[in-house]
Amino acid sequence: MAVVVRNAPRTELDIVDGLAEAGVATVHEAQGRIGLLGAHLRPIYPSARIAGNALTCEVAPGDNWMIHVAVEQALPGDVLVVTPTSPCGDGYFGDLLATSLRAHGVRGLVIDAGVRDVADLTDMGFPVWSARVSAQGTVKETLGNVQTPIVCAGAAIRPGDVIIADDDGVVVVRREDAAAVLEASRAREATEADKRKRLADGELGLDLYGMREKLAARGLRYVDAAEA
Amino acid sequence: MAVVVRNAPRTELDIVDGLAEAGVATVHEAQGRIGLLGAHLRPIYPSARIAGNALTCEVAPGDNWMIHVAVEQALPGDVLVVTPTSPCGDGYFGDLLATSLRAHGVRGLVIDAGVRDVADLTDMGFPVWSARVSAQGTVKETLGNVQTPIVCAGAAIRPGDVIIADDDGVVVVRREDAAAVLEASRAREATEADKRKRLADGELGLDLYGMREKLAARGLRYVDAAEA
Amino acid sequence: MAVVVRNAPRTELDIVDGLAEAGVATVHEAQGRIGLLGAHLRPIYPSARIAGNALTCEVAPGDNWMIHVAVEQALPGDVLVVTPTSPCGDGYFGDLLATSLRAHGVRGLVIDAGVRDVADLTDMGFPVWSARVSAQGTVKETLGNVQTPIVCAGAAIRPGDVIIADDDGVVVVRREDAAAVLEASRAREATEADKRKRLADGELGLDLYGMREKLAARGLRYVDAAEA
Amino acid sequence: MAVVVRNAPRTELDIVDGLAEAGVATVHEAQGRIGLLGAHLRPIYPSARIAGNALTCEVAPGDNWMIHVAVEQALPGDVLVVTPTSPCGDGYFGDLLATSLRAHGVRGLVIDAGVRDVADLTDMGFPVWSARVSAQGTVKETLGNVQTPIVCAGAAIRPGDVIIADDDGVVVVRREDAAAVLEASRAREATEADKRKRLADGELGLDLYGMREKLAARGLRYVDAAEA
Amino acid sequence: MAVVVRNAPRTELDIVDGLAEAGVATVHEAQGRIGLLGAHLRPIYPSARIAGNALTCEVAPGDNWMIHVAVEQALPGDVLVVTPTSPCGDGYFGDLLATSLRAHGVRGLVIDAGVRDVADLTDMGFPVWSARVSAQGTVKETLGNVQTPIVCAGAAIRPGDVIIADDDGVVVVRREDAAAVLEASRAREATEADKRKRLADGELGLDLYGMREKLAARGLRYVDAAEA
Amino acid sequence: MAVVVRNAPRTELDIVDGLAEAGVATVHEAQGRIGLLGAHLRPIYPSARIAGNALTCEVAPGDNWMIHVAVEQALPGDVLVVTPTSPCGDGYFGDLLATSLRAHGVRGLVIDAGVRDVADLTDMGFPVWSARVSAQGTVKETLGNVQTPIVCAGAAIRPGDVIIADDDGVVVVRREDAAAVLEASRAREATEADKRKRLADGELGLDLYGMREKLAARGLRYVDAAEA
Repeated sequence: MAVVVRNAPRTELDIVDGLAEAGVATVHEAQGRIGLLGAHLRPIYPSARIAGNALTCEVAPGDNWMIHVAVEQALPGDVLVVTPTSPCGDGYFGDLLATSLRAHGVRGLVIDAGVRDVADLTDMGFPVWSARVSAQGTVKETLGNVQTPIVCAGAAIRPGDVIIADDDGVVVVRREDAAAVLEASRAREATEADKRKRLADGELGLDLYGMREKLAARGLRYVDAAEA
Repeated sequence: MAVVVRNAPRTELDIVDGLAEAGVATVHEAQGRIGLLGAHLRPIYPSARIAGNALTCEVAPGDNWMIHVAVEQALPGDVLVVTPTSPCGDGYFGDLLATSLRAHGVRGLVIDAGVRDVADLTDMGFPVWSARVSAQGTVKETLGNVQTPIVCAGAAIRPGDVIIADDDGVVVVRREDAAAVLEASRAREATEADKRKRLADGELGLDLYGMREKLAARGLRYVDAAEA
Repeated sequence: MAVVVRNAPRTELDIVDGLAEAGVATVHEAQGRIGLLGAHLRPIYPSARIAGNALTCEVAPGDNWMIHVAVEQALPGDVLVVTPTSPCGDGYFGDLLATSLRAHGVRGLVIDAGVRDVADLTDMGFPVWSARVSAQGTVKETLGNVQTPIVCAGAAIRPGDVIIADDDGVVVVRREDAAAVLEASRAREATEADKRKRLADGELGLDLYGMREKLAARGLRYVDAAEA
Repeated sequence: MAVVVRNAPRTELDIVDGLAEAGVATVHEAQGRIGLLGAHLRPIYPSARIAGNALTCEVAPGDNWMIHVAVEQALPGDVLVVTPTSPCGDGYFGDLLATSLRAHGVRGLVIDAGVRDVADLTDMGFPVWSARVSAQGTVKETLGNVQTPIVCAGAAIRPGDVIIADDDGVVVVRREDAAAVLEASRAREATEADKRKRLADGELGLDLYGMREKLAARGLRYVDAAEA
Repeated sequence: MAVVVRNAPRTELDIVDGLAEAGVATVHEAQGRIGLLGAHLRPIYPSARIAGNALTCEVAPGDNWMIHVAVEQALPGDVLVVTPTSPCGDGYFGDLLATSLRAHGVRGLVIDAGVRDVADLTDMGFPVWSARVSAQGTVKETLGNVQTPIVCAGAAIRPGDVIIADDDGVVVVRREDAAAVLEASRAREATEADKRKRLADGELGLDLYGMREKLAARGLRYVDAAEA
Repeated sequence: MAVVVRNAPRTELDIVDGLAEAGVATVHEAQGRIGLLGAHLRPIYPSARIAGNALTCEVAPGDNWMIHVAVEQALPGDVLVVTPTSPCGDGYFGDLLATSLRAHGVRGLVIDAGVRDVADLTDMGFPVWSARVSAQGTVKETLGNVQTPIVCAGAAIRPGDVIIADDDGVVVVRREDAAAVLEASRAREATEADKRKRLADGELGLDLYGMREKLAARGLRYVDAAEA
């Protein structure tokens, strides 16, 4: 039943790029705390922050054949998202595939499995969020799917959903929600800037957020160490 | 039974700062190999080394309300130590809380749970030792305790005990032991400097530490590869 | 039955150094995907790449005595490989032992256990691949073996086999295979350079590797998103 | 955005019960190796085998409020499937909830989190597949969703999809595929019965499956130990 | 600084035995959800339920010497609680030590490390909660402490605190709280019996606990599947 | 380089059966604490205890083809030992393969990967020690090796070495050591029987093993709780 879906929809890159600026934690909050991929996905080097349209790829364990198939479906602004059909830590991806993806405008890789050639990928500045680093290579024997809905690291992802990834992890925004989530993210950032300034000036969160009354109502007691 | 203890005792900052210089491995040895927190606590960026008075905070799983309460009890030179009452990897802490803590003189965070805004925390130079990085936020519904004795990452910690943290992990020194442990740490460093020089000159540890006789007594045999 | 084998054989350093240039992923492929150590061994700092003759050391859990014994058997160009007889995450190794090993020409450490003094080791530029970082020290009570065949992180390693380690992990090449594997690695690198160029120019792997026919034979279907 | 969907569709119980007989491994094969939930979900006691319509429930970490809400939507033949919005090992579920579910005809629980009262659940014969056992209770503060599509242990599950669970784990069959998968499962079982008999009589799989030619074509060599 | 404390206090066995009847989940709730040991401690066989006075023992990694020392301090009704000073999965304990402990009235073992002779311990009916099963033995070289306050699996435990252990895990009750916690446990059990009956009769928790109003106030929406 | 070695040597079954009686913990001690496989290998059902000649099989990740090849090399009294060339938790093995192996006299399976059909295997009484249970099937595409030396769960194993497995785990005894290890195991059991009787009568290990003097020499202090 292996299938490759051509001409899958994408989210407008203006929106995608706005979500990259907001970052994972802000976007996750702004869309109601849904869509986070498992925290075991970690960046192979620090300080990368990207967003892109999900180019989905479902592979067999220990088999990276379909990644080669996926490259042909790539458009500039995509992020490749790879998930194995059963857990596998092998190194599915290295610098040759990264070179090929970059030539087609792909911005990075999210994979719930292993990668290798980490030093080369770092030198290239090709960002990857993976479950593991492993030099163990894979074979090219079993078909899978490209641009079909998948589950990756516990999150449901469809082609053209927006993937945002940074040092905090990876989050997916549904294509139909992307514009609204961008707006909510910007609103959130605006209020945070003011809070940051007041907190830096020493104002307590207890006062800034008006928490004292609710804490008292719940029964929080204050005692002095001398009496405790 | 939630309680906040005010005016908890602290260890003198002269002693605290001396322990920071010694570092985790030396302090751990100097106090007889006790007080180490679980090795799953890792720094979010390399090369930080701090020490401070423990400002303790016990929180519900997925709930960071009490961290806001804890900020009010902070004194310059404190390190915030947060432990959930059951295991939880959510992102309890981000750049806003770090801004607030820094404004009150807190030197860093040790937390047996997750944190987020890692890129911002790195840019700020606010050091954190955590069990995980996760963008998953928390709620503010359940009370906990501030400045009571806690267990964090397997170690018993009381307010005002000294926390030392660096690339090797995190160790706690009991307040009443701090002066003696500082002295023992310095003594240990002095003897290490001499050993380091002799080892760098090629002297063998077998001779430097006088191990040959004990090895022979225990029955260690040497054979030549040609005969093995 | 503890034993130290003197004068164990080594692989020629010309070959060893050639394998270092090739790196772990290439060497692993070139020798038929055998000899990889478990991916839980990670470098304590990024970007190191070394190769050397295995100087093997089997230790008791929580006991680093035999590492001191191993130093005496070191030759320039060795890599120390340490494995505990049962799983143990203690910090077996720190900057003093690194100083001693370096004085005798050892290029780095591979250990299926913990290490400490990570900041110092990083400053020294002494590379380590370990299962963990832990400040927990060890004792010197129980004998073990030096320069005998061992299993480390799931791989069989004999004295004088070649250890290659970089950001992708650690691989071992049997001494009798080293020259042939070096040749195969260089051949592999030569073909990769050409592929990298063609992929960078936008040629698809599907065409470069001639995959289309086999994919079709296996039944891969292409559909348009509008019809899916 | 919390919502409870009433009157969600179900799969016919005749089909559901047929899939229970086939068991997880057979069903997984029969539907093309898709739909398996993560292998970290384990039964709390051995030898249970059930199938039922998914009654889905998405909960906050450490909060089991929505499970109480889900009970009202239960129909006989359902299996409750619970997933937290971020990883959480707390004990969401015990014998009181099991009593309530059983009174409404629910056949068991699949939960990517913790459960408690395991001895009571075993005595009741109420089967549970969970990620963990933990006595840590939960709160009732945060809304979630009932009978919406969820991701549980890495698999996408919609209300009324069929859940099959036994000692081998848990698999989901899409409602629209259930009848066809049942048929394929029975066909598979029929061919397995014949194979089992021939294998029990000593016939080799090499001959039964006609593997010898393909093995030879791939280059498998046979050597005698005396010459190896 | 190794020490053995003689004649440590105990909790009355009437209270201890009452807590055993209540079980871990009930006791944990009754004392305000504190004192739970890490859920990685699992029983070596199902269906055991015990309580006893904590006989504490702190051991070096890979060294069970102090367990032999602890036996002499045992009183009937004790439960031995063993914690290593750094994580260690070796098999510290087998049927000989169990035979010795039983001869002195000890009811079981809680250990944050490994055990062996599991089949024999099961045949003897000597219950053990451990982090692992491993045949790897230990040595007798390093001193530790007996009957001092310890941290085991993340919980602070003092000699004579009450340990309750069953299929749900392990919980500790402070000696001074034991009588009150027993009373609270019994009160909790009484109310649960009534709830269990009503739930078995089909009454919904939504009504029994009066949740509907609060759910509506928080904004829970109900929709029909046909409209969703 | 895939190869099947025919007519590999075996250890006499009299010796093998004697080692089964001794069990894993005793054998491991008797041969000087070497040869233990990783403790992550657990029996799929309790109370099995077997020994047999290692029939080794090295497989690709997610590929069980070579297990079919291995059956042809089986002799009565063998235990099949399977290791993947990179970590893989898929279900390599189920009741059909067990039926085939049993028809050829194989006593059980040790596999550093997953298995399925666990309920059927339990009903058959075909014992398995595995790293995981998973319904995820495997393919038959890639060659491997049968009856060559392998590393399984961290231990080096050669064809015809003796595998002993019970509830405590799995240990390997080298063929050339088997007779001596059997003798040492029996000697150990003889002394244990006497110790067990004395301990059951209440004699302390401190006296039975003469530990008091050494403890005092190392500095163990006894204090009374009233003074502590």
